[in-house]
Amino acid sequence: MAGNTFGNLFKLSTFGESHGVAIGGVLDGCPPGIELDLEAIQNDLNRRKPGQSAIVTQRKEPDTVEFFSGIFEGKTSGTPIGFAIHNTNQKSGDYSHIKDSYRPSHADYVYDQKYGVRDYRGGGRSSARETASRVVAGAIAKQFLSNIKINAFVSQVGNLKLAKDYKDLDFSLIESNPVRCPDPDTASKMESYIKEVRKEGDTIGGIITCVIQNVPIGLGEPVFDKLHAELGSNVIYQCGKRL
Amino acid sequence: MAGNTFGNLFKLSTFGESHGVAIGGVLDGCPPGIELDLEAIQNDLNRRKPGQSAIVTQRKEPDTVEFFSGIFEGKTSGTPIGFAIHNTNQKSGDYSHIKDSYRPSHADYVYDQKYGVRDYRGGGRSSARETASRVVAGAIAKQFLSNIKINAFVSQVGNLKLAKDYKDLDFSLIESNPVRCPDPDTASKMESYIKEVRKEGDTIGGIITCVIQNVPIGLGEPVFDKLHAELGSNVIYQCGKRL
Amino acid sequence: MAGNTFGNLFKLSTFGESHGVAIGGVLDGCPPGIELDLEAIQNDLNRRKPGQSAIVTQRKEPDTVEFFSGIFEGKTSGTPIGFAIHNTNQKSGDYSHIKDSYRPSHADYVYDQKYGVRDYRGGGRSSARETASRVVAGAIAKQFLSNIKINAFVSQVGNLKLAKDYKDLDFSLIESNPVRCPDPDTASKMESYIKEVRKEGDTIGGIITCVIQNVPIGLGEPVFDKLHAELGSNVIYQCGKRL
Amino acid sequence: MAGNTFGNLFKLSTFGESHGVAIGGVLDGCPPGIELDLEAIQNDLNRRKPGQSAIVTQRKEPDTVEFFSGIFEGKTSGTPIGFAIHNTNQKSGDYSHIKDSYRPSHADYVYDQKYGVRDYRGGGRSSARETASRVVAGAIAKQFLSNIKINAFVSQVGNLKLAKDYKDLDFSLIESNPVRCPDPDTASKMESYIKEVRKEGDTIGGIITCVIQNVPIGLGEPVFDKLHAELGSNVIYQCGKRL
Repeated sequence: MAGNTFGNLFKLSTFGESHGVAIGGVLDGCPPGIELDLEAIQNDLNRRKPGQSAIVTQRKEPDTVEFFSGIFEGKTSGTPIGFAIHNTNQKSGDYSHIKDSYRPSHADYVYDQKYGVRDYRGGGRSSARETASRVVAGAIAKQFLSNIKINAFVSQVGNLKLAKDYKDLDFSLIESNPVRCPDPDTASKMESYIKEVRKEGDTIGGIITCVIQNVPIGLGEPVFDKLHAELGSNVIYQCGKRL
Repeated sequence: MAGNTFGNLFKLSTFGESHGVAIGGVLDGCPPGIELDLEAIQNDLNRRKPGQSAIVTQRKEPDTVEFFSGIFEGKTSGTPIGFAIHNTNQKSGDYSHIKDSYRPSHADYVYDQKYGVRDYRGGGRSSARETASRVVAGAIAKQFLSNIKINAFVSQVGNLKLAKDYKDLDFSLIESNPVRCPDPDTASKMESYIKEVRKEGDTIGGIITCVIQNVPIGLGEPVFDKLHAELGSNVIYQCGKRL
Repeated sequence: MAGNTFGNLFKLSTFGESHGVAIGGVLDGCPPGIELDLEAIQNDLNRRKPGQSAIVTQRKEPDTVEFFSGIFEGKTSGTPIGFAIHNTNQKSGDYSHIKDSYRPSHADYVYDQKYGVRDYRGGGRSSARETASRVVAGAIAKQFLSNIKINAFVSQVGNLKLAKDYKDLDFSLIESNPVRCPDPDTASKMESYIKEVRKEGDTIGGIITCVIQNVPIGLGEPVFDKLHAELGSNVIYQCGKRL
Repeated sequence: MAGNTFGNLFKLSTFGESHGVAIGGVLDGCPPGIELDLEAIQNDLNRRKPGQSAIVTQRKEPDTVEFFSGIFEGKTSGTPIGFAIHNTNQKSGDYSHIKDSYRPSHADYVYDQKYGVRDYRGGGRSSARETASRVVAGAIAKQFLSNIKINAFVSQVGNLKLAKDYKDLDFSLIESNPVRCPDPDTASKMESYIKEVRKEGDTIGGIITCVIQNVPIGLGEPVFDKLHAELGSNVIYQCGKRL
């Protein structure tokens, strides 16, 4: 209801603002007995965090996840997995210059109108940082959905398109370059292009393609919770953020 | 969960297959004391039903809604509104020619795989007819959301675009032509074009534009149930149907 | 939320007031492929209805359930089961003598305060008649939970107690007498006692015992949705009615 | 669903096992702008914790709650309140003597059967310690439900009954004695009695009475989520624990 819980049987409730003490969540409904590779979860968090290369935003967020519960002797126990990622750059800093002005294209104004409260320190709850909690849940899900392969990559930057069919791509190359395009040639062109645009003080949009393989027939629900609709709304959840 | 319920505070659970006894639903959470204009609800059902003009599918479905509960002395009473629309063309007909073959672009195969049952009589649960139940709920919602104006119209058919800004349109003209385009000139061109395409035994796609006015600031939830995401998934629910 | 839906995976949404057109519901999440014995469902409805014997309330309600959907060729199809029970004694009768006075120990006053509407024709939504919709859902559940045996019987009337352990009872005798006590001797004493009390123009309380056998280990959820808690709240739902 | 979330509009999801890193939760739907008295929350946690007096269990759990989010400049911000209570006595201790035997009257066996995992270190998820997370949520709720007065006290220990009507009690005396009975004379008798029983190496049951005042008319939902039913199931959630 209040918009911070996602899923039914495998259910994530998240908390946390960009400049608060910590972000995190409770993941309920994870099957018991899953041997968790905690390093793989941390690797996915590292993939998400800003400041990893010269072509992305330079904010530094050393996102280290701490697990509170739900894991016993290296395996999930079927009980809720509580976790937090502490904010290390939570400075008492000087916000006086932004305290009295809403930032353009941010959710400040709407939050203020809806809740009567404005967290002027940053993106607050609608910061891209909030997605780190979802990365934790997703990284856990990947470990027990081992048969279903999910690969996302950059397929277009500006007008530069990756022209190959997904079947002709080697997904293991996605991580081999900072653009995360599985075709090294296209990746290199995209990278140069982004650097050029960057020099001019601008940014450039792109397209992310996600390929999900081995999906069981009939996944999703028939009328209101169709798989396409769920995927559609989740793309909006993930992308409807300042990035 | 099982995909047949929509909404939280104002919650609709629908039932019914295209060739079954009836379709309908339970609408829970409707505010009490709303004077219901039952004729307006029936009018919206009439708008939905096929066979209204020469340019649409010619199936006949006289969708008459029957209310079972939740209305007392012409007003909503705050209790669930149960309703059904009986299927009048529910013929015992001869289905032997389709009984053993899945129809292309329909959900037959998926239903069969998911549930182990195939309702070979027609679209079954994934028939466009199912949307009539949502029209009932929507028509009721419109009556108490009287300040919020919701208008949908055809803004493109093939390459024929309605070139005006929504602010320059007279929404009262939407119903004045079978295409439901509020600009009479464009509507007339669209209609001729559809008839032409029809003669060739073909169909043609289009774009529906929906304008919602007077939406309160802050409507929707902040992270997972954002208004945009909810609208997005609902467009998929409504359109992810054979029409 | 609005209190008319029960269950998660097997979910019932009910509608209907005692003196309205019909009561009924939508049952979502019923497994597909269950061969439904409709007569058994009707028998359970007949068991519930008042006026069956000399020792209960004499109202007559011929509760005939009509199914709208979710059943194809005698089996459940996995789609929602819509159903209604029409009210046949829905008289336009004269309510003027009760229109302006709340009935003691009924929910009239609370409904009026909560919703601003009073359905003065009878129990309205809080009538015992509403439970008929649950009987339909329960009767369906019994058919696929065939291994789990659920038997309820009267174990005490006033101070007259059934002194036997449930293991020494023959549940097939429950229906053999109007009191529904599986011990014929005790049943006969209970019946005489109720008739005596009735002659004095009074009523007498009792205890219903329910025995559920073959329950799988671990049924229910660990913290908030414990089996005991769910059973407890359901007993209150079922009994917190005028009977 | 998975039994670790409670409530709808004001919704608590809890996590944590008795001997894990931490217990805690996410509280979603708390109204914004509530000035939170954090000390009052900590006081309620202190009331809950064992080892406070000579008449209760002697385990020591210094339950200090840490808030991660949802509070800005001393007020709730309308975003989820994430919190944790770290376990300080989480010893790597020697469990070999209990590792292979289920504890009587505990949930070990059921957990093992349901999840295939047994947390042999202690009560795990079904420890009374889990209730501390609910105390945090309840203590926050009390602060904005300031008009509704909720007082719980011990009204009976063994056969020793508090004979007064609740209207004749001074609730401010509840905390004045270790038994938490608002009548000093009865409290003193109860205390002596418990000590006596304790000397004999036994325990003794009792009754807690809860008085809720100024409840709005019509609180709760009409059919399935009745106030009585909700209270009933919650009493079972709270008490269906080893204490």
